[in-house]
Order: sequence, then structure tokens, then C-alpha cells
Amino acid sequence: SRLQLSGLCFLLQILLIILFALFVRYNPERSPGLDSQELNCSWRNRDLGLQPALLVTFLARYRLGSVATSILVVAFVIQWAVLIRGFLYSFQNGKIVVGAQSMVSANLCTMAVLISTGAVLGRINPVQMLLMTLLEVTIFTLNEFILLSLMGVRDSGGSLTVHTFGAYFGLMVSRILHQPRVDGRQEEQDQAQHQNLAVPLPTGTIYLWIFWPSFTSVPTFCGTTEPWAVLNTHFSLAASTLATFILSPILHEEGMLWMVQLQDATLASVAMMGMAGEMLVTPFGALTAGFLAGLVPLLGSRFLTPFLRSRLKLQDTCGIHNIHGLPGVLGTLLGTLLAALATADAYGDRLQVVFPEVAQGTRTAQGQGLLQLCALPLTLLLATLGGCLTG
Amino acid sequence: SRLQLSGLCFLLQILLIILFALFVRYNPERSPGLDSQELNCSWRNRDLGLQPALLVTFLARYRLGSVATSILVVAFVIQWAVLIRGFLYSFQNGKIVVGAQSMVSANLCTMAVLISTGAVLGRINPVQMLLMTLLEVTIFTLNEFILLSLMGVRDSGGSLTVHTFGAYFGLMVSRILHQPRVDGRQEEQDQAQHQNLAVPLPTGTIYLWIFWPSFTSVPTFCGTTEPWAVLNTHFSLAASTLATFILSPILHEEGMLWMVQLQDATLASVAMMGMAGEMLVTPFGALTAGFLAGLVPLLGSRFLTPFLRSRLKLQDTCGIHNIHGLPGVLGTLLGTLLAALATADAYGDRLQVVFPEVAQGTRTAQGQGLLQLCALPLTLLLATLGGCLTG
Amino acid sequence: SRLQLSGLCFLLQILLIILFALFVRYNPERSPGLDSQELNCSWRNRDLGLQPALLVTFLARYRLGSVATSILVVAFVIQWAVLIRGFLYSFQNGKIVVGAQSMVSANLCTMAVLISTGAVLGRINPVQMLLMTLLEVTIFTLNEFILLSLMGVRDSGGSLTVHTFGAYFGLMVSRILHQPRVDGRQEEQDQAQHQNLAVPLPTGTIYLWIFWPSFTSVPTFCGTTEPWAVLNTHFSLAASTLATFILSPILHEEGMLWMVQLQDATLASVAMMGMAGEMLVTPFGALTAGFLAGLVPLLGSRFLTPFLRSRLKLQDTCGIHNIHGLPGVLGTLLGTLLAALATADAYGDRLQVVFPEVAQGTRTAQGQGLLQLCALPLTLLLATLGGCLTG
Repeated sequence: SRLQLSGLCFLLQILLIILFALFVRYNPERSPGLDSQELNCSWRNRDLGLQPALLVTFLARYRLGSVATSILVVAFVIQWAVLIRGFLYSFQNGKIVVGAQSMVSANLCTMAVLISTGAVLGRINPVQMLLMTLLEVTIFTLNEFILLSLMGVRDSGGSLTVHTFGAYFGLMVSRILHQPRVDGRQEEQDQAQHQNLAVPLPTGTIYLWIFWPSFTSVPTFCGTTEPWAVLNTHFSLAASTLATFILSPILHEEGMLWMVQLQDATLASVAMMGMAGEMLVTPFGALTAGFLAGLVPLLGSRFLTPFLRSRLKLQDTCGIHNIHGLPGVLGTLLGTLLAALATADAYGDRLQVVFPEVAQGTRTAQGQGLLQLCALPLTLLLATLGGCLTG
Repeated sequence: SRLQLSGLCFLLQILLIILFALFVRYNPERSPGLDSQELNCSWRNRDLGLQPALLVTFLARYRLGSVATSILVVAFVIQWAVLIRGFLYSFQNGKIVVGAQSMVSANLCTMAVLISTGAVLGRINPVQMLLMTLLEVTIFTLNEFILLSLMGVRDSGGSLTVHTFGAYFGLMVSRILHQPRVDGRQEEQDQAQHQNLAVPLPTGTIYLWIFWPSFTSVPTFCGTTEPWAVLNTHFSLAASTLATFILSPILHEEGMLWMVQLQDATLASVAMMGMAGEMLVTPFGALTAGFLAGLVPLLGSRFLTPFLRSRLKLQDTCGIHNIHGLPGVLGTLLGTLLAALATADAYGDRLQVVFPEVAQGTRTAQGQGLLQLCALPLTLLLATLGGCLTG
Repeated sequence: SRLQLSGLCFLLQILLIILFALFVRYNPERSPGLDSQELNCSWRNRDLGLQPALLVTFLARYRLGSVATSILVVAFVIQWAVLIRGFLYSFQNGKIVVGAQSMVSANLCTMAVLISTGAVLGRINPVQMLLMTLLEVTIFTLNEFILLSLMGVRDSGGSLTVHTFGAYFGLMVSRILHQPRVDGRQEEQDQAQHQNLAVPLPTGTIYLWIFWPSFTSVPTFCGTTEPWAVLNTHFSLAASTLATFILSPILHEEGMLWMVQLQDATLASVAMMGMAGEMLVTPFGALTAGFLAGLVPLLGSRFLTPFLRSRLKLQDTCGIHNIHGLPGVLGTLLGTLLAALATADAYGDRLQVVFPEVAQGTRTAQGQGLLQLCALPLTLLLATLGGCLTG
């Protein structure tokens, strides 16, 4: 099996090098519309490599042995996503032009893939995981292209394209691969793992607190307006933390792991703010949304997961449905609502940045909201179909 | 007790959401006098969430179980400090306007609160800690407002407002809560904890080395002059490290924990440089100050702590008096001296940035020095009174 | 021995403070040719303190007890390197002028020293290590001055000046200090250490992934062109990871430590890209170079290390020859090739940035390549002589 993996890696890497040699060139000039300030801004966040690292940290929580596999997946996805994305966006004269932007997008894709692997971790071997990745990257890029470029949906933090897509894709793969007997044993092991790994958790949570807020805001507000997306994400993180402390003692017995729940709440709040973060115009809106997001993983793991497991035979190793899936969907609905209610009064100059089509008058706020809403079933459909196909 | 905590969190969070809904709005325009370059600069340092994380790391050293509590405190303080600060600084027409600056200041406040909790950690329960936080944030913001806005004291890195205030506030609370029997047992446990937690320490120290120097410099020197505050802090960190290696073998037996002492020296050096960092004009001044700062925690823990414990019944779980209190006071005295001696010759164009009042001629250098000096007893008074009241 | 160390530290620190007081002043004005954008750029990467921290992390892997020594070395080297560098570069009127650039260069020097200590770690005591450091910093700065300032060699990421110099200097010291009996015992302990420290490794690798790509690119491409050096380093990191997964199952049995090998491959890829990173003009070149770099540490530790150990009696505690030495040499050869083949067509406007002499016509591309090549034996010679002398 290890030699199989070795051979597959060799084939893929050689294939990638050949494809890169044939098609990919660096952008000789600066990307149009990307002035020095903005570039600075996106580099400042060290996006390249940041989020994968975060999610590796996140996965490390469950299964230390699989960190190596995750790093392999990240290393492969980055190359593959740059290639696929290039074919969709910038294929001209038989050449693809890549630049810093390609790498940032490739990292968003990596996040979606890592979320998906959270549902099947420990149940498929690395070879299967590489093949799953191959398909998921393609469908992810297609979905992102349709949503962001063709439909003009706003989703800077990836509530929909990253969190929701990744979660439901992974869940579908997990459903198809369902094997009743193996899963029972697996689950007990998971429980045991949980107990042992309480120590590295604070580090993971702290990383998220530090890095994510600036990450969420990258695509839109660099240096031009007050960074509301960052502030919104911060307020929502704070509120989701308090929500965990409120609900947890009611739902659980003494002695459970605070840190796991805090990290779940943090991730849920981030998934929620992905789309709405740049659209919220008041701090109390962010507090309320974060508060609700913090309740979702706790309620979900208590009531929804057992139901999914027994009725739909959905096995979800890392609870990604509660942490990424549901908050992503809720964040999309919130974003839809906010887009539909957007007025020039409330946004002022920021309307131009957040909803350029609305500001230019080529689209009404309601139209934008409708588009955001349509993007949700489309993403779910693509994720589900893709997951089935891959499974 | 857990349900009590849950209820209190619920009440506070609802109260905060209502207050935010009634009063707080985002700043629709960019803050005046804050051009794109500066904003960049402060974001670059990821202040939002950085220092809390650092101090959570610092606390993690002593008591892993209390990390969850610390995160709760951070999540609450950030919201509460934004609100209180808004009422003091920008209350107009019944509305508070918040922006990126509010969040940065809220984080400074979080640091002071976490320093204070270092003195009482493990002796009060989370509910008591939340109530203590409620009061401390209010008094901290009041003190900061009087010092920085009314008196025009310069304290960009918070030697006085953060380190000294936090340390003495915590010590007073600790003094009032003194219970002879419990503390004896406590102490033994602390010793045991120390032994076990040697491993995560390097990480904490390294974080401080990486992030603090850029943090110290944020408020003043962004992109306009050579960043002397950063360089000063670096030189002083290096010198304090050597000081630890010089004094430690003389004071202690073989086999004690290097890393704990190195981290203490690092923190002391940072507390020392908080005020003086931007005022020192020569590297050797920074080396000398850092060298002295590195000696303080070692000498303090050897000679001063036993004295305080036996005579004044001051219980100091994490040694915050030696690490934050004393170096903060020394840093303030150094800052006073430097301010009093400031001349246009030595500072050149930087005088405008470091001491704007002196540069504009509305105040003499000696006047500035006197103000800096007066700020010290005022802060000590407010911290002591506040601590007594809270206790 | 501990009192000896204490005394030596005291002497050195007092000496440094006196020398700083006599000679060193801050640059009163902004460095010429360093506009606000660039300064921003270099601060953004928090270079000051970043790389030392990374390499401390790297060393932490082998021997937890030596972390304190490494921090001592870093604290001393930073001060000493600023001084030596000042004497070489900016000695005027009996004064040295230092600025942000001095600190960045001091950190590069720290990296070279830490790489060297990797070869002798655990075999010499801290006093010897401080003395070795004293000499190495001087020779390093001399070598760097000759290469970069006098000869005009391009080596922004330090393939040659940092990785190759550090590795061969350390190896020579190790060779001179060779003691057959002690080393045998030592080695067994190393093996045991390896087994125990698998857990903190992922963190180290992740740090490298996050921070190094932006570090490599600092000196050249700040805000002026598309950051190809960053992208090249990323592609090469991804390829070297896949290379590890390809070769490792063939060379090793089941059950070895993935993470150690992944970190080695990462470091090798970084050493390889130090010089060539800014010169490669196509992504597939970076992929290929990274792929080869990933193979080096695996092949080296399997075939070359036993040979060196038995024939040349070269003891290499941390395998620095495979991780830093060889990839550094290969990177230099690659850089030479690329410099010799550089044409205005392929580089466009970037020629001015990467090879200013060639762009101005004062030197041909072949001349630049020849210079890059000459720099290799010169560095090896200085490193070897310096190592012998120190040993």
C-alpha cells in the first residue's frame, strides 16, 4: 500500500510538472487592478500557506497519524488547484498565466478539501484520499467559477464556496462509503483519541483567533475603508465564545472538554461570518450572529448528529456538519438577507466595494439577494453530486 | 456553580448586545488623521487578538485548566472595553462610534486584565473573575483616559497603564482575598505544576520574541521614521537574556528551570521598554535598560517575594509583581528621566512624533517629565483603590 | 562550569555595552533608497526575531535541554553581528550607524550560526559554543561582505552565505572535535531522543510553510513586481513534499517518522530556493528544483551520511550536511546556471531588480554567472578555514 502511494505520487507529480511546463507561465506584469497597496495587503496576511496550516492544526486534533497525509493532500491540492483554476480563468493562446491571486485561491480550495477529509478521516487510505482530492478540486473550482465570476455572488470569506461546499461534499463521500461494522469500532477509537489530545488544543484555538479575522477580510477591504469585516469577525468570535459557556453546562455533564467546544464555536463563527462579515453594518448584528453561530455546534452535536447517524447512516468523524456545514448555510441565508436589504444610505461609499453591481445600478439589491440565495442550492447540488460520484 | 456561570454569561451577553444595539455604530469614515499607511501598519501587527493570545499562552504555563476561563475573560473584556472606551472617548448624540482603534485599545485592556488574573489564578472561581473583570475594565479605561488624553502622558507600550496598573490591581485583589490555610496548599500545587509544564514554555518565549517588538512600536512609528522602538526592544530583549544567564547560576542551584526564568526576563524587559522604547535614542541605552530589566525578576523572586509573602501576606501566584509590576515602575521612571532630558538636538524630527506638545512649544521637556512622573502615583492609587474595592 | 558561563556572559555583555556606547548610533534619517513601502515590506515579515525563532524550533526537535543554550546564542549573536556588520559597512568618523537593515542582517547571521551548532550540539558546552559563535559571526560577516558588496553576487535567500557557509563551518568544527568513543554513546541517545519528540514536529513544519516563503522574498521584491520568489518557493515546497512521499517508502521500512523527513525536505527545498528563488521564471522550474531538493536529504541520510561517518569521521548530529549543505550547493549551481542564461527577454522589467549590473550593461549575464560560481569555492574555503581555526 505504501509503494502504491509512492507510485501514485510519482505519477501525479510528473504529470503536474509536464502540464506546468506545457501551459503555465508567470504573469509578466502586475495583475490589472491590483495596485501595490492591495498586493501588500494580501501578502500581509501570509495567505499563502496560512489556512492550510490552520486546518492541519485543526485535523491534528483528531488523529496525529494523519497529519502527514494532510500535508501530502495540501501539497498536491495547491499545485492541482493552480492548474485547474488557470484553465477556467486565464486560458489564452494555449497558455495559463498565474500570479499571487492563483495561489490565494488555491489555498481557499485547500481549505475546502481539508474540511471534506474531516468527514472521512481514518476510513479511507491515502491513495483513495488523493483520488478524492483530484475530483473535489475540479468540482470546487467549477462551482467557485460559476458563483463568483458568472453569477457575481459575493462570498469573500467562503461561507458558501468553502465551508458549505466542503462539508456537504465530505458528508456525501462519507455516506457512500458507509460500512456499518467498521464504523462502530472507529467511533470508539475517536472517543479515546479525544481524551488524549486535550493539550495541543489551546494552541489551535489561539491561532484561529489571531489569524482568521484578518484572513476573512482580505479580498475586499484592503486599505481603502475601515476594515469592518475584521471587526465583525472579532465581535462574532467573542460572542460565540460566551455562547459556548452559556449552553455547554446545560447540555453536558461536568468534565467534558471545554477546549474542543470552544474551538468548534470559533470555527462555526468563522464559517458564519465568511459571507456576512463584510455586509454587516452594525457591531450588534455581528454579536448576535456570532452568538447564534456559537450555539449551533453544541445543539447540533447533541441533537442532530445522533439523528443523522441512526437515520441517514451519515458518519461524520470530526463533526464537520455542525462546525462547517450548518453555520455555512446559516451564514449564506444571513448574507442573502443583508444583500436584499442593502441600501445606499446604510453602506455609503462602501456599497461600491461590497456590491459593485448594485452601486453601478446594473442590479437591484433584491436581485443581488436572489442571486446569493440561488447560489445555495446550486452549491449543495454540486457538492452532493460530486460527493456521490467520488464515493 | 457551572449553571451560575452559564446564567451570568447569558445575562452579560444579552446586556452587551442590547447596549451595542442602542449605542454603538461603526465609524462610517476613516478615522481622522489615520491615513492608509498607518492603518496598514497597525493591521500588519495583527494586534486584534494577538496580545490576548500571548497572555493566554503565558497563563497556560501555570494551570492548563484555567485556559478556558482566560478565553472567556478575553471574550468578555473585548466587548466590554469597546463599550466603556466608546462612552469615554466618542459619545456624541447618544451614539458611540467605534473603529479599528477601539479594538486595539480593547486588547491593551485585555492584557492588563490577564496580568491581574495572574495574581489570583486558582483562588477565585470564574463567576468572581467575571465580576472582577467588570470593575477592572472600567477603572483601567478611566485611568488610561486621564493619563493619555487629559494629561498627555506618553506610554505607547503600556509600561504604566498596562503592566503597572494590571500588576498592582491584581496584587491588591489578592491581598484582600488572602486566606492563610488555603494558600499554603495552593502553593505546593503550583510547584508541582511548574515541574510538569516545562515543555510548552519554549513556544511561549519564542512567541514573545517574535511578536512583541513590533507590538511595542505600533502606536507611534508607523512608516514615518526609522522604527527605533522596535530596535530598542530587540536590543533590550537580547541583553535581558544574557542577564538571566549571568545571575541565575549565582542565585539558584543546578537543575532549576531555565525556560521559566528566560520567559520572565523577556516579559520584564518588555514591561520596561513599554514607555521608554520610543524615547531611547541610543542602542547602548536599550542594552543597559534591558540588562537591568533581566535582573529584576531573578532578584525579586529570590529576595522580595518571600518578604512580601511573610510580612504583607501578599500571595502572588504567577510572580506578576516581579515580572510586570517592578519593571513597569522602573520603565516609567526611566521614561520620566528621558522625557525630562529630551532636547530637539537628540531627537531631530522625531521630537514631533514622540513628544508633540514639546515640539510645538506648548510644554517644556521638564514639564513633560513631571507629568510622566505624576502619572505613576496616580496609576498606583487608582489600581490600589480599585483592587481594594473589587476584593 | 555554570559559574564560568555566567562570568563569560557578564564579560561579553559589559564589553558589548561599552562598544555600543563608544561606536554605535541610530541612523537619524531613513536609510537612503529605502522608501516607506519597502520598509513596510520588510517589517511586515517580522524578520527581526523570526528566523532565530524558527531555527530554535528546529533545534528543539533534537534536544530540549539545549533550547536555553540556543536562546543564549541568539541573544549574543544579534548584538555581536550588528556590531561587526557596522564596522564593515558603515564605519565613519569613529561611529557606526545602525538601522532596521542591520537587525535583518544580524538575523541572517543568527541562522547560519544555528545551522552550525546543529553539527556540534550536545558535544560542546555552552562556554565553547559562545567562543565558536564569536569567531563564526566575524567570518560570516566577512564572507557576506566580500560576496554581496565587493563581488555583487545575488543571494537574497542565503543559499550560499547562510546555508552552505553554516553547514560546512559546523561540519569542520565537528570534524576537529571528533572523539571516537564519546560519539558512539552520543549517537544512541540521539536515536532515543528522536523517538520521543515526534509530537512537536508538525508545529515546526507548519511554521516553515507559513513563514519561509515570505522570508525568502524579502530583500528583493517588495511591492514592486509580482512576487515570483514567494510563488517559486511555494511550488518548490509542494513538490519536495511529494518527493518525500515517493522516495521514503522505497528507502525505509514501515514505521519511521514521516514528520522528521517532511521537515528535512522542507528545509532542503528552502535552502535550494534561497538563491534561485528570485531567478526562476517559470513555475515548472520551481517544481522540478523542489522535487530534486526533496530527494536530497533522503538519499543523503541513506547513502552519504554513513560514508562520511566511517571514512571522514564526520559526526553530524542533526544531519545538517544533507539538509542545508548539499541543497545549498545545488541551489548555488542552479543560481549560477540561471544567472548565466539570463536574458532581457525572459526577465523583462524584472532584470533591473534581479541583476541590476546586467541590466545596466556593466556586466554580461555570463560574467554574473561566473561570479556566482566563484562565490561557491570562496565560501567553502572561508567556511572550512574558519571551522578549522575555531575547532
